[in-house]
Amino acid sequence: MAYVVLLRHGESHWNQDNRFTGWTDVDLSDNGREQARMAGRLLHGGGFTFDLTYTSYLKRAIRTLWIALDHMDRMWLPVVKDWRLNERHYGALQGEGKRKFEELYGSEQVHQWRRAFDVRPPRLESDDPRHPRFEPKYHHVEGSLLPNTESLADTVNRVLPCWREQIMPRLRAGEDVLVAAHGNSLRALVKYLDGVSDEAVSNLNIPLAVPRVYEFGQGQEVRRRYYLREGGEEAIED
Amino acid sequence: MAYVVLLRHGESHWNQDNRFTGWTDVDLSDNGREQARMAGRLLHGGGFTFDLTYTSYLKRAIRTLWIALDHMDRMWLPVVKDWRLNERHYGALQGEGKRKFEELYGSEQVHQWRRAFDVRPPRLESDDPRHPRFEPKYHHVEGSLLPNTESLADTVNRVLPCWREQIMPRLRAGEDVLVAAHGNSLRALVKYLDGVSDEAVSNLNIPLAVPRVYEFGQGQEVRRRYYLREGGEEAIED
Repeated sequence: MAYVVLLRHGESHWNQDNRFTGWTDVDLSDNGREQARMAGRLLHGGGFTFDLTYTSYLKRAIRTLWIALDHMDRMWLPVVKDWRLNERHYGALQGEGKRKFEELYGSEQVHQWRRAFDVRPPRLESDDPRHPRFEPKYHHVEGSLLPNTESLADTVNRVLPCWREQIMPRLRAGEDVLVAAHGNSLRALVKYLDGVSDEAVSNLNIPLAVPRVYEFGQGQEVRRRYYLREGGEEAIED
Repeated sequence: MAYVVLLRHGESHWNQDNRFTGWTDVDLSDNGREQARMAGRLLHGGGFTFDLTYTSYLKRAIRTLWIALDHMDRMWLPVVKDWRLNERHYGALQGEGKRKFEELYGSEQVHQWRRAFDVRPPRLESDDPRHPRFEPKYHHVEGSLLPNTESLADTVNRVLPCWREQIMPRLRAGEDVLVAAHGNSLRALVKYLDGVSDEAVSNLNIPLAVPRVYEFGQGQEVRRRYYLREGGEEAIED
């Protein structure tokens, strides 16, 4: 029986501010690094070993994984980086404060962009220096696949193929997998694994750097799911 | 025209002592971490970008790579870990001080083990807790491939298939590669790339954490080779 652990990155410099991060490659804060160490120690103490790991192309997720692997004494584990595990792309909102857009468009509209399942924020213009096509890390990705804005529905549609093509086959082969990623890319996986509705998924909150464990049975059904916290397991109630 | 950069890890806790390390998974010292940062800054400043990276299963090499990637702002690059890039296996000498073996076997014998091309130190017994078959990281490796001692010739014979099967095809495809590994696994690659004789290779010294650059021409011949150091390039004279 295999398991997968979903791990949202620790606090980033921008989680402290009130800014839209998205694909902006912001690093962990000192507090975020400490959260990642704690996650690694929890996983180690809980006897989680893993056969391989996945993460995104964004350093707050990669560093969270590196720190956790270090504290599990398993730095040698394979790490697969897949851009499809990136955070939701927030379009023109990226790098901007929420207040600015609330003044421009009204707080109801901003709330829609943040919480509606299938509403996209204004897109990045293709000559905007923030557009992913200007970043070397995406040069090998086919240009038409690179988003300039995404609804949560778009994020789900890009993350699930990664799950089906990459991660699920390894679980089926009996391998245990750690996925270090982002609030919305992990929401996509949780939506799939827990059968969360389009309406409910936007309000589903995945805490920073708390390992969310799924144990699979023989028939690949989810047998148990819980958060691993200091002091023990905690039932998931979303 | 592609390039490969060979990077020996920074100083480890045992490089400071006078002990045989081999496959013992010793971490970088603070000085070694600083050396890795310097290597990353040098590569970044020199305009090296890379398409993918290779390292061993040993944390002193992995951490050197992680730190260098961090300081190049390229944490997202693919990292392939291959146990065949590990340090030479030093058999029963691993974890022991040189003096102990000099007292037991004489300093001439110890010198032979260290410097002769095809002399193996005493092997690890198969029930020795230091044997790699007890380490989870090697569980997926076919047992008959795991060494219990190696001459430098043995190390060459295990490293070169990794070069031929993994690294060379990527260079041929025009991709630039960074290899973070160990004194003897890198000697094996340098022996091959520079045509060093069996006699001369044992005396070839690869400095800690100094990027050794090979630029290839259209016909895959080595067009230039040099060390990248603070202040500029330095011709390789071995």
